Amino acid sequence: MISVDEARGRILAALPPVGLEIVALALAHGRVLGRDVQARVAHPPADVSAMDGYALRAVDAGTGARLCVIGEAPAGHPFAGRVGPGEAVRLFTGSFVPEGADTVLIQENAVAGQDGITVTEGAEAGRHIRKQGQDFATGDVLLVAGRRLTVRDVALAAAGNHPWLTVFRRPRVAILATGDEISLPGEGVGPGGIVNSNSAMLATLVAAYGGEALVLPAAGDDAAAIAEAAVAARGADLLVTSGGASVGTHDLVQAGLARHEFALDFWKIAMRPGKPLIFGHAGALPVLGLPGNPVSAYVCATLFLGPALGVLAGLPAIGPVFETARLQGSLGPNDVREDYLRARLHWRDGGWVAEPFARQDSAMLTALAGADALLRRPPNQAALVDGDAVEILRLAL
Amino acid sequence: MISVDEARGRILAALPPVGLEIVALALAHGRVLGRDVQARVAHPPADVSAMDGYALRAVDAGTGARLCVIGEAPAGHPFAGRVGPGEAVRLFTGSFVPEGADTVLIQENAVAGQDGITVTEGAEAGRHIRKQGQDFATGDVLLVAGRRLTVRDVALAAAGNHPWLTVFRRPRVAILATGDEISLPGEGVGPGGIVNSNSAMLATLVAAYGGEALVLPAAGDDAAAIAEAAVAARGADLLVTSGGASVGTHDLVQAGLARHEFALDFWKIAMRPGKPLIFGHAGALPVLGLPGNPVSAYVCATLFLGPALGVLAGLPAIGPVFETARLQGSLGPNDVREDYLRARLHWRDGGWVAEPFARQDSAMLTALAGADALLRRPPNQAALVDGDAVEILRLAL
Repeated sequence: MISVDEARGRILAALPPVGLEIVALALAHGRVLGRDVQARVAHPPADVSAMDGYALRAVDAGTGARLCVIGEAPAGHPFAGRVGPGEAVRLFTGSFVPEGADTVLIQENAVAGQDGITVTEGAEAGRHIRKQGQDFATGDVLLVAGRRLTVRDVALAAAGNHPWLTVFRRPRVAILATGDEISLPGEGVGPGGIVNSNSAMLATLVAAYGGEALVLPAAGDDAAAIAEAAVAARGADLLVTSGGASVGTHDLVQAGLARHEFALDFWKIAMRPGKPLIFGHAGALPVLGLPGNPVSAYVCATLFLGPALGVLAGLPAIGPVFETARLQGSLGPNDVREDYLRARLHWRDGGWVAEPFARQDSAMLTALAGADALLRRPPNQAALVDGDAVEILRLAL
Repeated sequence: MISVDEARGRILAALPPVGLEIVALALAHGRVLGRDVQARVAHPPADVSAMDGYALRAVDAGTGARLCVIGEAPAGHPFAGRVGPGEAVRLFTGSFVPEGADTVLIQENAVAGQDGITVTEGAEAGRHIRKQGQDFATGDVLLVAGRRLTVRDVALAAAGNHPWLTVFRRPRVAILATGDEISLPGEGVGPGGIVNSNSAMLATLVAAYGGEALVLPAAGDDAAAIAEAAVAARGADLLVTSGGASVGTHDLVQAGLARHEFALDFWKIAMRPGKPLIFGHAGALPVLGLPGNPVSAYVCATLFLGPALGVLAGLPAIGPVFETARLQGSLGPNDVREDYLRARLHWRDGGWVAEPFARQDSAMLTALAGADALLRRPPNQAALVDGDAVEILRLAL
């Protein structure tokens, strides 16, 4: 048995990032940028007005001065001429500041009369002007490759005049549930059967992590069936199986994949839930074998599959981020396995309080759905009492 | 001018939830559930074994006892007969426990011989058996309408044997950017022009909030053009405009929408950035008019459009959730407008430290993209010094 950290390290080190593709800007949110984005234009593109008012020369704009309005420059319609002594041009937020002018007198500080204005409060040079390139200049690197793009990044790339972005393509993950007992939701449950919740859960999780799920028809508890099903995973970046990892004394997933030149890296992790986790390669295809119990499968997917999809998609190799909470209730000493308890969170006195569910059975989907966090206990941790500090991983998915 | 809270309250109170639709289970993640989900099966469907081992009667399973193995029940293949005195049935994790047996002896506590086993450590009744319906019984309400579905909820609905879920359909949001000066990214910028970043930003934001964006071709600074463009918003649940809200002394969006029986609710909010925010109805169509500056548009969208999409999609009317941080640096007294400063966050001594950017210009997209949070300052807040408590809204999008 190896530790959770070692297992994750070995998985992440074994996964190469996928290739790049081009996507339309409006579809780039959440994708990982594959190439730096450089500004193709300056922002603002010229000196522009930040207010509605008049462009003029500050030396002419003492309180009480009168100026001649020689034209108007609405946004998008720059004034072609030049602002000379005693002259002003009417403009608006976003208007280019015409040549010759060095300040914007806001309209609240002017009284408009017959073809001219009177300054009621003087303006100093440079006021209310956004300088050309003050946000960014042409050629500036706006976004660095390797960044997962936010909505704001999309806006920034748009402002830099990019209709397309180069991103890592979505990692393709083939999902193969195994077990004689499972049937798809709505398909009718046979005698001794149970509904398969892992395929829908894993497909949804893969999509939420930015991947593309290919859900293979389930395979029975038979090495030949698993071998045959796995053929359809060709072209995927990762094959994720669930179940079949500890049936009796033999391992069906390993037996099935052996027909695809399976090389095992490891298959037991010192954790609860989820001990029988397989990682290896079937030829060049990385294979992550999750436990069949849905809670175990979810916890293992959160700890290993999520970070794996990040690395495949071009992100750095990092695990989930834990926070600190105080324990509600008490817990006995932990054994040699790292433990992930399903817990509710309460916000109390400026911090999180974690209340583990009394029942931690790895078949309890209701408790999983009702959990706010996983409470992590290191191997061999001593007993804990109410109020002790614990590590939590908040669950958003 | 009205307050941010009042503005949000009036917007949210004016929006009815959209109708329901049916979606395939695997596509339901992130959707808001429209009808309760009741379990169609029990989970587990019968008493099942939680381990690999032997089903037998606890009274027969004292240490040293020998039992006759009368059959095998792999998962999915229940044993048809009954376990009698001195008998055992081989089974595995997930196998149904046969009639007559009341405990599972794990295989580690038995030695298998010729057609029988010897117990090496006694078993007590009920051990390693997951009782039928222990997670949920047929008819139990698994998920309550009005909940935004997580991946775990999808797994739970799957286990309850639901291939389809009834959810609120995605709210349809028409997006209309206005301005003579704007051009689409990659389309070429005219003289006096600037690239439109709002349409891509808002479309992406609407999708991230669970809506469906309909991006209308932009309209120039002309009431007739805006009126014509708005025709295409018919059938949408909300029309969002950007720009055109304070051009000179008249309001083009209001003037344009007047031709669609526009009734204004309010159009000025005591906030920075983003004062000129319009809300009203063009006939039955709710209209949210955002400022043209992309930073103002983003901040207003975060404070108003996000919660609005939640209400349209069937969620309760709630605003964004603020957290507490300590200020890095100092800030002068605030004026009458609620202020949203773009800030970086640092995790220090077990809490967030918020460092506002020195430059808070509402045209600075680089600062917006680099921000981790908005720092909220209430109207008329006194000057703040380093270490003072401030409210922050962390930005995930």
